[in-house]
Amino acid sequence: METVGHLRESGILQLIKPYCSDLVGDDGAVLEPIASHPIVTTDVLVDGVHFSDRTTPAHSAGWRSVAANLSDLAAMGARPIGITVGLALPPATPVEWVEDLYRGMKDCLDRYGGSILGGDLVRSPVRMISITALGQAATPILRSTAQAGDVLVVTGYHGASKAGLEHLLNPGITPIAADPKPLIQAHQYPVPRIDVLDYLPDRLAAMDSSDGLADAIIQIARLSQLGAKLWGDLPLHPELSHYDRTLAWEWTLYGGEDFELLLAMSPQAADQFVQQMPGSFVVGELTEALAIVGSDGRSLSLAQSFQHF
Amino acid sequence: METVGHLRESGILQLIKPYCSDLVGDDGAVLEPIASHPIVTTDVLVDGVHFSDRTTPAHSAGWRSVAANLSDLAAMGARPIGITVGLALPPATPVEWVEDLYRGMKDCLDRYGGSILGGDLVRSPVRMISITALGQAATPILRSTAQAGDVLVVTGYHGASKAGLEHLLNPGITPIAADPKPLIQAHQYPVPRIDVLDYLPDRLAAMDSSDGLADAIIQIARLSQLGAKLWGDLPLHPELSHYDRTLAWEWTLYGGEDFELLLAMSPQAADQFVQQMPGSFVVGELTEALAIVGSDGRSLSLAQSFQHF
Repeated sequence: METVGHLRESGILQLIKPYCSDLVGDDGAVLEPIASHPIVTTDVLVDGVHFSDRTTPAHSAGWRSVAANLSDLAAMGARPIGITVGLALPPATPVEWVEDLYRGMKDCLDRYGGSILGGDLVRSPVRMISITALGQAATPILRSTAQAGDVLVVTGYHGASKAGLEHLLNPGITPIAADPKPLIQAHQYPVPRIDVLDYLPDRLAAMDSSDGLADAIIQIARLSQLGAKLWGDLPLHPELSHYDRTLAWEWTLYGGEDFELLLAMSPQAADQFVQQMPGSFVVGELTEALAIVGSDGRSLSLAQSFQHF
Repeated sequence: METVGHLRESGILQLIKPYCSDLVGDDGAVLEPIASHPIVTTDVLVDGVHFSDRTTPAHSAGWRSVAANLSDLAAMGARPIGITVGLALPPATPVEWVEDLYRGMKDCLDRYGGSILGGDLVRSPVRMISITALGQAATPILRSTAQAGDVLVVTGYHGASKAGLEHLLNPGITPIAADPKPLIQAHQYPVPRIDVLDYLPDRLAAMDSSDGLADAIIQIARLSQLGAKLWGDLPLHPELSHYDRTLAWEWTLYGGEDFELLLAMSPQAADQFVQQMPGSFVVGELTEALAIVGSDGRSLSLAQSFQHF
């Protein structure tokens, strides 16, 4: 099996060149002037922490690492320009893994916008992918601009990615009635919601739900100096209805990595948005009272949300 | 000893906030429009490969990781706007190490321009620092635009960083007459040559010498489809004159990480540049003949230059 250590740096650069833009190959990439606001965001993925051969084939690891960054851009109201890729690899990494990784990154960029502008490739005891995405937004969207009386809109179901991950780690957990394929797909090939940008109202707050829906609700409320209240039970992903209800509810609120957007906007704007974006729905509202209250009247907890340490 | 694992993510973010710009804290950082050309570059540093507690205290690791990126910007003719920091840390990392790292990054940015715009902080079995720098250049400089008859100018001595590293790893190697302090300083606190940007001619090619002076000469020549010829012996860093001549010469050509610039420009432009930038000097010329020839008539070798794998 050919490894990265056999090819050395120049060989690997040759290998990945077809997946990169023509801007790669100097000390840095030269971009065209950006007349609107440049938006920059970074995500780091570590083997064994954020991906692994067991749950995430190389192509999926590449797709997910790009999708995570494009999701942050979407949450800022930005369209992608491109990414840089900092890649740390053990010399024993199969060359095929690297090529599949870049193919996955490029497939995601080809679909949602942007190209690979540059990067760095280094030796390391563990595989790590550090991506910085650059985008542009005519009107950047913040987390902190929600107003009391705004409603909270999600762009889709939550919990599927976590359920897919659990299935990949412990195939035995799947109830017989459930089809794990869409859940695994949700984990391995999340969709960054760039498509939402065409339908946003003039005034809103937004955040992506990569650290869990509960976390996103709490962050938007806190940064806007408001509280939040969920309305009734959240709609469950259809496949999750086959699972234990407590577990399905926990995944939905705290699972993370669904890469949907949580938006806060006026009720009128939400009516129009939900009509235009099938799959989106209103989950609650922002309140003057500072508590973060679930539909059962109990507080939502940050302690359960996705922890990086 | 307080560790990163004790503080968890929110505690670490509080800790590093004073070192970051106010743009940190949303899904991405919102920048002002960039009317000239944005330049983007990425460098990854791995503990045990590019830095270590033995050779690089945290403050120096922070400084060096920023300096490496600003050096790439300088080579593109760009002034820094800011950086994002992807930081992967074992939970057992001392909190003090993280704070010193950010202090080192900020000290380098305060000195040479730019601020910390954002980043990501994740758990990892090994410490890794992935920095992406964004800069702007009115007239971006490439490696590939050298012309036959251009002379090769370096902005300063080479080999000191490697000599400093060798001293840190094997203190016994120091000749009695030599003072290792400036060499260790060169390794731990390299200077990105942003200062050079004020004195560049209209037409030139440039590259930073982070992978060694020989490598930079070969890259500029190859990408400009030319050869290169060194003139006589390169001036040695004064402290290196105390060392074995073969070793000193090897460090000068192949040591790497000096973060000087190699520039190709007309002989007339070089005369003026060398007068304006004390410490810079002409080392050779670019030729129609494709060989890369050292001052002893033998070819320079890429095999000896800094290898990332």
